Amino acid sequence: MKVAIIMGSESDLEVVRPAADMLKELGIEFEVRVMSAHRTPDAAAEFSKKARENGFGVIIAAAGKAAHLAGGLAANTTLPVIGIPVKSSTLDGLDALLSTVQMPSGIPVAAVAIDGAQNAALLAAEILSLTDRTIAEALDDRRKQAAIKIAAKDKEIKAMF
Amino acid sequence: MKVAIIMGSESDLEVVRPAADMLKELGIEFEVRVMSAHRTPDAAAEFSKKARENGFGVIIAAAGKAAHLAGGLAANTTLPVIGIPVKSSTLDGLDALLSTVQMPSGIPVAAVAIDGAQNAALLAAEILSLTDRTIAEALDDRRKQAAIKIAAKDKEIKAMF
Amino acid sequence: MKVAIIMGSESDLEVVRPAADMLKELGIEFEVRVMSAHRTPDAAAEFSKKARENGFGVIIAAAGKAAHLAGGLAANTTLPVIGIPVKSSTLDGLDALLSTVQMPSGIPVAAVAIDGAQNAALLAAEILSLTDRTIAEALDDRRKQAAIKIAAKDKEIKAMF
Amino acid sequence: MKVAIIMGSESDLEVVRPAADMLKELGIEFEVRVMSAHRTPDAAAEFSKKARENGFGVIIAAAGKAAHLAGGLAANTTLPVIGIPVKSSTLDGLDALLSTVQMPSGIPVAAVAIDGAQNAALLAAEILSLTDRTIAEALDDRRKQAAIKIAAKDKEIKAMF
Amino acid sequence: MKVAIIMGSESDLEVVRPAADMLKELGIEFEVRVMSAHRTPDAAAEFSKKARENGFGVIIAAAGKAAHLAGGLAANTTLPVIGIPVKSSTLDGLDALLSTVQMPSGIPVAAVAIDGAQNAALLAAEILSLTDRTIAEALDDRRKQAAIKIAAKDKEIKAMF
Amino acid sequence: MKVAIIMGSESDLEVVRPAADMLKELGIEFEVRVMSAHRTPDAAAEFSKKARENGFGVIIAAAGKAAHLAGGLAANTTLPVIGIPVKSSTLDGLDALLSTVQMPSGIPVAAVAIDGAQNAALLAAEILSLTDRTIAEALDDRRKQAAIKIAAKDKEIKAMF
Amino acid sequence: MKVAIIMGSESDLEVVRPAADMLKELGIEFEVRVMSAHRTPDAAAEFSKKARENGFGVIIAAAGKAAHLAGGLAANTTLPVIGIPVKSSTLDGLDALLSTVQMPSGIPVAAVAIDGAQNAALLAAEILSLTDRTIAEALDDRRKQAAIKIAAKDKEIKAMF
Amino acid sequence: MKVAIIMGSESDLEVVRPAADMLKELGIEFEVRVMSAHRTPDAAAEFSKKARENGFGVIIAAAGKAAHLAGGLAANTTLPVIGIPVKSSTLDGLDALLSTVQMPSGIPVAAVAIDGAQNAALLAAEILSLTDRTIAEALDDRRKQAAIKIAAKDKEIKAMF
Repeated sequence: MKVAIIMGSESDLEVVRPAADMLKELGIEFEVRVMSAHRTPDAAAEFSKKARENGFGVIIAAAGKAAHLAGGLAANTTLPVIGIPVKSSTLDGLDALLSTVQMPSGIPVAAVAIDGAQNAALLAAEILSLTDRTIAEALDDRRKQAAIKIAAKDKEIKAMF
Repeated sequence: MKVAIIMGSESDLEVVRPAADMLKELGIEFEVRVMSAHRTPDAAAEFSKKARENGFGVIIAAAGKAAHLAGGLAANTTLPVIGIPVKSSTLDGLDALLSTVQMPSGIPVAAVAIDGAQNAALLAAEILSLTDRTIAEALDDRRKQAAIKIAAKDKEIKAMF
Repeated sequence: MKVAIIMGSESDLEVVRPAADMLKELGIEFEVRVMSAHRTPDAAAEFSKKARENGFGVIIAAAGKAAHLAGGLAANTTLPVIGIPVKSSTLDGLDALLSTVQMPSGIPVAAVAIDGAQNAALLAAEILSLTDRTIAEALDDRRKQAAIKIAAKDKEIKAMF
Repeated sequence: MKVAIIMGSESDLEVVRPAADMLKELGIEFEVRVMSAHRTPDAAAEFSKKARENGFGVIIAAAGKAAHLAGGLAANTTLPVIGIPVKSSTLDGLDALLSTVQMPSGIPVAAVAIDGAQNAALLAAEILSLTDRTIAEALDDRRKQAAIKIAAKDKEIKAMF
Repeated sequence: MKVAIIMGSESDLEVVRPAADMLKELGIEFEVRVMSAHRTPDAAAEFSKKARENGFGVIIAAAGKAAHLAGGLAANTTLPVIGIPVKSSTLDGLDALLSTVQMPSGIPVAAVAIDGAQNAALLAAEILSLTDRTIAEALDDRRKQAAIKIAAKDKEIKAMF
Repeated sequence: MKVAIIMGSESDLEVVRPAADMLKELGIEFEVRVMSAHRTPDAAAEFSKKARENGFGVIIAAAGKAAHLAGGLAANTTLPVIGIPVKSSTLDGLDALLSTVQMPSGIPVAAVAIDGAQNAALLAAEILSLTDRTIAEALDDRRKQAAIKIAAKDKEIKAMF
Repeated sequence: MKVAIIMGSESDLEVVRPAADMLKELGIEFEVRVMSAHRTPDAAAEFSKKARENGFGVIIAAAGKAAHLAGGLAANTTLPVIGIPVKSSTLDGLDALLSTVQMPSGIPVAAVAIDGAQNAALLAAEILSLTDRTIAEALDDRRKQAAIKIAAKDKEIKAMF
Repeated sequence: MKVAIIMGSESDLEVVRPAADMLKELGIEFEVRVMSAHRTPDAAAEFSKKARENGFGVIIAAAGKAAHLAGGLAANTTLPVIGIPVKSSTLDGLDALLSTVQMPSGIPVAAVAIDGAQNAALLAAEILSLTDRTIAEALDDRRKQAAIKIAAKDKEIKAMF
């Protein structure tokens, strides 16, 4: 199953890139797309309605301000949709966070942190890991590597003082 | 031209009722509808796409939490769309306000205050007043009556102390 | 009918310029003015009271901090008034947003996003489009162009990964 | 010199009453009025412009939501204007606080706490105390009484445990 | 695969109950547990470390205030963890929301709305639906029923005015 | 060493009572006092200056709104001062939290959660436990009891579903 | 009567300078001082207690973060105290604003906008203008000049488009 | 007794350095460590469980975003734990502040200001001063030096105007 990474505007490319990088690192197939809840609502709805039959397992959606993209996609599919609130020039990302996470009953969105693209990819991987042992192992391995890296930093910094 | 008052959930009926009451008082034709950006996105999009040819001049949309309704309607029409952020059980309406007002460039929504249904109707009337002298006069008259009422209250309270 | 773009301080010029640019692009006549709710309240009130008879159809008002300009103009006219909250050096625009949008019953302001000048112009155009088919068509055309542009970006970015 | 207590809506009467009570207790002459920045802007401006020559020394203004009343009065006088932000049904008073206190350079408003009517009266009294020794003494006396009362409570509660 | 619903305190039972009800309605096996990130950290860590091998596919965690439960569980598993921020007596749920959603890179949590237990269950079901056609169909069916219900309400309310 | 529990107003008594109850339960000597940073600043400063020589080891201070009590006491002693921000009628405790915790460099205050009196007492006990093994054991025991209680609740609720 | 401008830290000098400049421009005598509510509480209290007899009429206090300076001075005098909340490196000034304005009943502070030093000076001048006709005239004149300047800018910008 | 300074990520080193500097200045023994509540939860828990027997008296923990580190350490020890909320790239530190300070009953954390590392060290020193007269004297001395420095600045700035 593939992961779709959809951004609401091409200006969000650098924000979502860590999601693509992470999926590539984990060997998960993905597509990166630009679709807007407001400027191309039909394309977004269409994509979402057919996502399951087109082989997608998870949709990641990144948008800023009144971030409706994740919610708009979620309204048209029962695949898990992960929302990345994107910080824009005002309000420090709070608007995007609340627009993404405060979904009404019936249509869930899985929100990650503001600008949290890497975690969105990891969450997608965790979801796919339920039926793909390779991904589960890759995730476990990543955790171990991270722990080792921190332990090394711990020693290094402990020795500095 | 008619005004559409659309709520995202039937539970918002009491919040939007003052909009209907005000339009009735001003003699403006209107329809009250329930459509959800998330649970009936196609119906909402369809309504919005045909709103202009169906004789609507303004769309009022009320929704709470991650309030995408006004934005979702605005994405499908170039009629003016007025958004009423509805206060729900958490965050005191801030989530709905930011989700309604912080629209990205290209797709405007005219936001009024949280739970500001009466003002949404008055704003719709102001818009229609541009080509309907009767409405303009009714609005002017309402302002004068309000001023008179306050002046009366002013006298009454001034005398109390 | 003309559109008035009023800023509360000449320092807001660059913030409101996208509104002027958009109206020009849409072929809508407009005037750009500097009037302050606090420093020239009489001029602002006077302008607003006569705006309808002077041929204005919509007033756009941009102000920061305790942004009273849109509300102050709205208090003196029954024309639709669009408020642009302007971000200033503290609080990231939240003060201007709340001062603009949280209007009391009876005097509506149509708030757009913080620094959302382009959307203010588009909203004004939508209002004028009710009786001007040319504007309606220009707006529809703009939407289509935006969709085409995003679709092109979509292809481009999809191919990048 | 008298103090004017102006509320933006008669519904604010109970919020401002402690200001009237405090001024009465301190023997300061005052008037309580209802004027709205939005519904009776001319009356408010007129009152403010003539306040100094009409014998007022301080203006207290109480308003909720996009609370423009204090700022609107301040724009029309160089008397000190004290703003009381009034909590309304949404946002817990934050909107009124920011609309009252975040005034642009040139037109100051002296903001007190949300619903802080008693302090508004005390602040007015402090201002008048500069040239009225009786008020200064009454204020000093009040402080001493308050300290004595707290000291008594301190003993009482200390003994409880 | 089972779903675990974990609450940080037994006082959250009524908040999480809609999650249990929804999973039951969808025919998904689940367990409801009380474990605290702060008061029984070892039990929580232990549960999380063994969750995958114990047959769980998704963990739902509900907690209020400095809501560390979801993050704490996520730190010990690579299963998807869904966080429900619970509103408590102060700050209207904002503390729990930020503590749940703003996870650092490497350890994702899928946050839903404040008190959004039903959506947490639906999100878990969407995740499980990737490999369980019955759940996918049940979710699709639920969506259709919701749309039908809203359409009925739409007719009813349209007729009221 | 004794603990001082100081409230800024007698109206905070019920908020601080859990601190007193907890200290009593842990067998730690304490005094409960009413002193105001604003209404009895000299008494508060005096108390604080002499607190160490009067046998106090920790000062707990509870205050609402612009909560200066903890900071004011901390300015006059180098004993650890614990601040309890108290929720009042507006802003849901955010004002007291920021006024308590955002102390400038040089004068620390140890802030606990809004209305977090029990934790303030436990923190005081933890501090005293550094040199009092009995308290350390009582605290450890309390933790164990809490864990047992949660484990029991866990069983009970697990069995309910 | 003189005005005291007190900053909590010498690092606030550039923030308060506009207050000094404005008082100088208005011909009002003033003193600029550094006193800290937390680091030199006795000096601050002492200054405040004697401010009236030392010929001060108004005290302006500027502080950031948990800004207790204005409140601490107000606790020791019945002169009007004006608080300038100073923006620091986190929270965009909100902490200082709430710590300054949310004073408890009995001890008023007149808060101006975040970093609003010029307005603090103008407010002080307005207070002194009650008994000093020269200041009243200077303030009126300033208002007129500001209006003229804006009118000129209005013409200039109107002509640009 | 030693102080532990633990950061959740090596990227927080510059934020916590002032804590280390201050402890060194006060002659208090300390260790600086990197441990993550999410990436090395076992190491963090282990450290915390043994901290008391390993000679630590106070633990200082610095973390950003959903800052669980201080709470996670506090869950495993009855030593006093001081939390430093670290500002990260979004929300200006508010997320870290609420995640640190809003601890549930039973597990206290002593929160200091956002990025308030120096105060965390001073608070630790105050705690240790209860049984170490040298530290108490060093702290008193620091206060006096700070007061003298401010008094000097006061003179300098007073003379500037």
